[in-house]
Amino acid sequence: MTRTSIATVCLSGTLEDRLEAAAAAGFDAVEIFENDLIASSDSPEDIRRRVADLGLTIDLYQPFRDAEAAPPPRFAAVERRFRAKLDLMARLGTDTILVCSSVAPDTVDDDALAADQLRHLATLAAERGMRIAYEALAWGRHVSTWEHSWEIVRRADHPALGLCLDSFHVLAHTEAYGEIAALPGDRVFFLQLADAPRLDMDVLQWSRHHRLFPLQGRLDLAGFTRAVLATGYAGPLSLEVFNDVFRQADPHRTAVDARRSLIALAADLTPAPHLGGIAFAELGVEPGTGPQLEAHLRTLGFAHTGQHRSKPVQLWEQGRARILLNAGAPTAIRAFALESDDPTASARRASELLAQPLPRRRRESEADLTAVTAPDGTEVFFCKGPAWRGDFLPTGENAAGRLIKEIDHLGLAQPFDRYDEAALFYRSVLGMTDDEAGEFAAPFGLMRTLAIRNEDRSVRLSLSVPLLRRGDWAPAVPHPQHITLLTSDITAIEHTVPIPANYFDDLAARGVRETTALYDEDGHGSYRQLFTPVVGRRVFFEVVQRVGGYRGYGFANDPVRMAAQRHERMASASGG
Amino acid sequence: MTRTSIATVCLSGTLEDRLEAAAAAGFDAVEIFENDLIASSDSPEDIRRRVADLGLTIDLYQPFRDAEAAPPPRFAAVERRFRAKLDLMARLGTDTILVCSSVAPDTVDDDALAADQLRHLATLAAERGMRIAYEALAWGRHVSTWEHSWEIVRRADHPALGLCLDSFHVLAHTEAYGEIAALPGDRVFFLQLADAPRLDMDVLQWSRHHRLFPLQGRLDLAGFTRAVLATGYAGPLSLEVFNDVFRQADPHRTAVDARRSLIALAADLTPAPHLGGIAFAELGVEPGTGPQLEAHLRTLGFAHTGQHRSKPVQLWEQGRARILLNAGAPTAIRAFALESDDPTASARRASELLAQPLPRRRRESEADLTAVTAPDGTEVFFCKGPAWRGDFLPTGENAAGRLIKEIDHLGLAQPFDRYDEAALFYRSVLGMTDDEAGEFAAPFGLMRTLAIRNEDRSVRLSLSVPLLRRGDWAPAVPHPQHITLLTSDITAIEHTVPIPANYFDDLAARGVRETTALYDEDGHGSYRQLFTPVVGRRVFFEVVQRVGGYRGYGFANDPVRMAAQRHERMASASGG
Repeated sequence: MTRTSIATVCLSGTLEDRLEAAAAAGFDAVEIFENDLIASSDSPEDIRRRVADLGLTIDLYQPFRDAEAAPPPRFAAVERRFRAKLDLMARLGTDTILVCSSVAPDTVDDDALAADQLRHLATLAAERGMRIAYEALAWGRHVSTWEHSWEIVRRADHPALGLCLDSFHVLAHTEAYGEIAALPGDRVFFLQLADAPRLDMDVLQWSRHHRLFPLQGRLDLAGFTRAVLATGYAGPLSLEVFNDVFRQADPHRTAVDARRSLIALAADLTPAPHLGGIAFAELGVEPGTGPQLEAHLRTLGFAHTGQHRSKPVQLWEQGRARILLNAGAPTAIRAFALESDDPTASARRASELLAQPLPRRRRESEADLTAVTAPDGTEVFFCKGPAWRGDFLPTGENAAGRLIKEIDHLGLAQPFDRYDEAALFYRSVLGMTDDEAGEFAAPFGLMRTLAIRNEDRSVRLSLSVPLLRRGDWAPAVPHPQHITLLTSDITAIEHTVPIPANYFDDLAARGVRETTALYDEDGHGSYRQLFTPVVGRRVFFEVVQRVGGYRGYGFANDPVRMAAQRHERMASASGG
Repeated sequence: MTRTSIATVCLSGTLEDRLEAAAAAGFDAVEIFENDLIASSDSPEDIRRRVADLGLTIDLYQPFRDAEAAPPPRFAAVERRFRAKLDLMARLGTDTILVCSSVAPDTVDDDALAADQLRHLATLAAERGMRIAYEALAWGRHVSTWEHSWEIVRRADHPALGLCLDSFHVLAHTEAYGEIAALPGDRVFFLQLADAPRLDMDVLQWSRHHRLFPLQGRLDLAGFTRAVLATGYAGPLSLEVFNDVFRQADPHRTAVDARRSLIALAADLTPAPHLGGIAFAELGVEPGTGPQLEAHLRTLGFAHTGQHRSKPVQLWEQGRARILLNAGAPTAIRAFALESDDPTASARRASELLAQPLPRRRRESEADLTAVTAPDGTEVFFCKGPAWRGDFLPTGENAAGRLIKEIDHLGLAQPFDRYDEAALFYRSVLGMTDDEAGEFAAPFGLMRTLAIRNEDRSVRLSLSVPLLRRGDWAPAVPHPQHITLLTSDITAIEHTVPIPANYFDDLAARGVRETTALYDEDGHGSYRQLFTPVVGRRVFFEVVQRVGGYRGYGFANDPVRMAAQRHERMASASGG
């Protein structure tokens, strides 16, 4: 695989924290971002030693600003500054410096002058065995496209002057990047990768706050990277991502997330095997929450069909829906199992994508379930066929209930700063695609949601996260997980949380006659939703009916559901 | 004063939480936002009763969408929906509904049709003794300016149809709102107020996420409000602010902040007396931190000149800089005192702006300092002359040191979700103006800063806040407060935290010869900064020298300072 690199500015912490995290995640190299070096109390020699001890190299020093097309009287100062940075690079042991196109108001609109000055700087660099990678900033004063930067590099015609191509700066301007593939690969000195959501806003602000790792946004990173590699470019794939959330998150986790994005991009992975559905979901059961969970399952028509041979785990079943209750673990979705055509390949792909393998203390009698841990702590099992049921002794009850057909989807609540990581993890590890995304105003703050699914929709996950990390004011249960169960007759479901009459009045005003369940519709059909109270502060069951070919998840109803669950909890707490 | 009102959507929590917070902050009325009602388990009659019990009225029900210029076949559904909402309003006991300009793709570009349909709806409203306030959304499909909405209202010509003017929707489009003043006041049915920062982005996103309360942003709320009041408009000043941060913050604090903004806007306040400088700053001294604080003060040339007659409070002095050390309180800036030409008037103004008065257990011998508590918990005293020093018995030491001249400014770190509230509080209560604002990448996340000052710069406060609420990763001291002391010779300052050599190398590369202190310059002069370690996890001293007329605060150096302080702390902790 191509070398991987990450700019120190992508991560949080001191420079030392950042280097350690990059190395631990398996990167080959780093870009040293100037501000991170300036703030460091370590000398360049110390940093060089530290980097080498960690098994890294420094593949780029960046950025050098306002160099080219300077008014000639100012160029002496540019040269002095440039020489000082070459001295610094020699001490750091790195040979490539990024020069980004000038933004200073006095910059001259003169390609010949720009080429002359860059040629002069390249000569100085070459004397030290170094070179310049010249990059067009999307908001450069006169040079803002890769074509324009290439024209200047071509005109300067110096072997120590080449291009730095940055996916963000190119794709922010255009989706027609195809001609990049025709560049001579030895003139592309560096490749920086960043994705981003499509936002209609000032490009500089978009770039400085909202960049994402590849495959986390909406830019065509795969196509762009292919085009650059087609030139014969042989340098690293290097991440340069400015992101408000990553800047304050644990750098070790962020670095793993970052490296996963490059692995997923490289696309020489074990192909994702076909997934055939959710085999089971496993809930932890804290002391005191068992009776509530069991009561809800009974009311919804589930039977306690099996008991684990060696562990305090119950199997509850109805139709194709199977739920394990694991006594002693926190009340939450602890794990789920997916039917895979090839569990070993599924696990191999997960491991290639840096998923943590899950150590299983296996007894002889237990089925060998391959499993990994997702970034949110959920354990993901891969299984084929019903072998796993051999671990359970039949209780004699049968799963003949007809209310519930199967698990429709799992609602996995994510911590605030792990939304993009979780989406990339589940999507890439499971080979799934984005489905519906949404943002809604919940009673205690805005929420973001993203559903992802496999091709035939037999596996659906919905991720949700608060838009901001919440403070003390938010109640303890603003954001539970859920298991959504599919029924073919929602009117037969009983004892769920009452839905406000005001909601049904509004539906009626809109011409929808519905008095039982939350309602949604799309171009394909309609959807009805009921739900239980939150159990143990962390999890609830939802029951849904899909009529026609409705494809969504009813996200727009989440605020009503959350307010109703809170009302029910307050009423219960006050004995009402 | 004009009646004040707030839309429920401005606040966090259930509808009940929001109504309570609005009443507690002293609002006269609320706008009921439809989604808040729909999610509520309380009936409209319950809500009506609750609102009345709280001493509020419901002055508006909102919004009613996609009403006007509907293709005629769809209009029957609009009318059915409208009638249902009139029924609901009757149950709620409110008589005005907001109809906002249509955004539906099938909306017809036909003012005559829009006027006809609105006239018809107004007739239905009038039959119930109700009326319609019609508002142009800035992103309305065909109607997006107040002039256009007025043209349609004028053409419809029905007494139950008038305008809703919203400062955001008007000022997002134009600063030329002057002609509003010529509208007939009895046709302006409602006035909604929201401020916002100037952001170059999609107007809908700007509106939905970034609105602020009046005087917290950059729109001309004062001028706009004057123009609307000049029409003879007699309804409430009503806040409608969509803000990601407010949506998740304690609604009681947000409601007070909101009402303060309307009080400040009304401008019939006690004028802010002239402030003559910072009389003293008071630090709490936790057990164990006293020796460090005292050592720093001694090193900086301060003398312990006084001891409080009855409390464990020391007075330290040098030049015009006076610092109190108050044993037993948490180590932080507990209070500061400002010289005021009229302390009583200063306190009266603060109280008019909803500052909490500070109860003082006064002994006979103590000076009567009027004081209030700022939202961040800091106590703000107002005093005139040196009477307060009578509380201190001289120790015999004198304040003849010449290193420090005075307190340059105070750095008040704010909690994440209180930045805009703090800025409005200090600015409006003290009659100060914004000075320098900045945003910078600190080692553990982005920071925002805002300095405010009085006219002659004798009182300066710098507020700082992390851009996002931080999680577990951030160290315990990412964000301390500071007292900045002014010197005329920074080279005489000793024993401060070492500044990285890399920083000075970079200054040299830029042609600045400086090897002692952090450096900044502006169009007026230059600035040098040194600083002590953080004491007690919460506070440090900074020493600065201003050369020429430098006006800033050196915010750009904050990341270097923070990294150096962290390095020093880690080195101390490891005994290095």
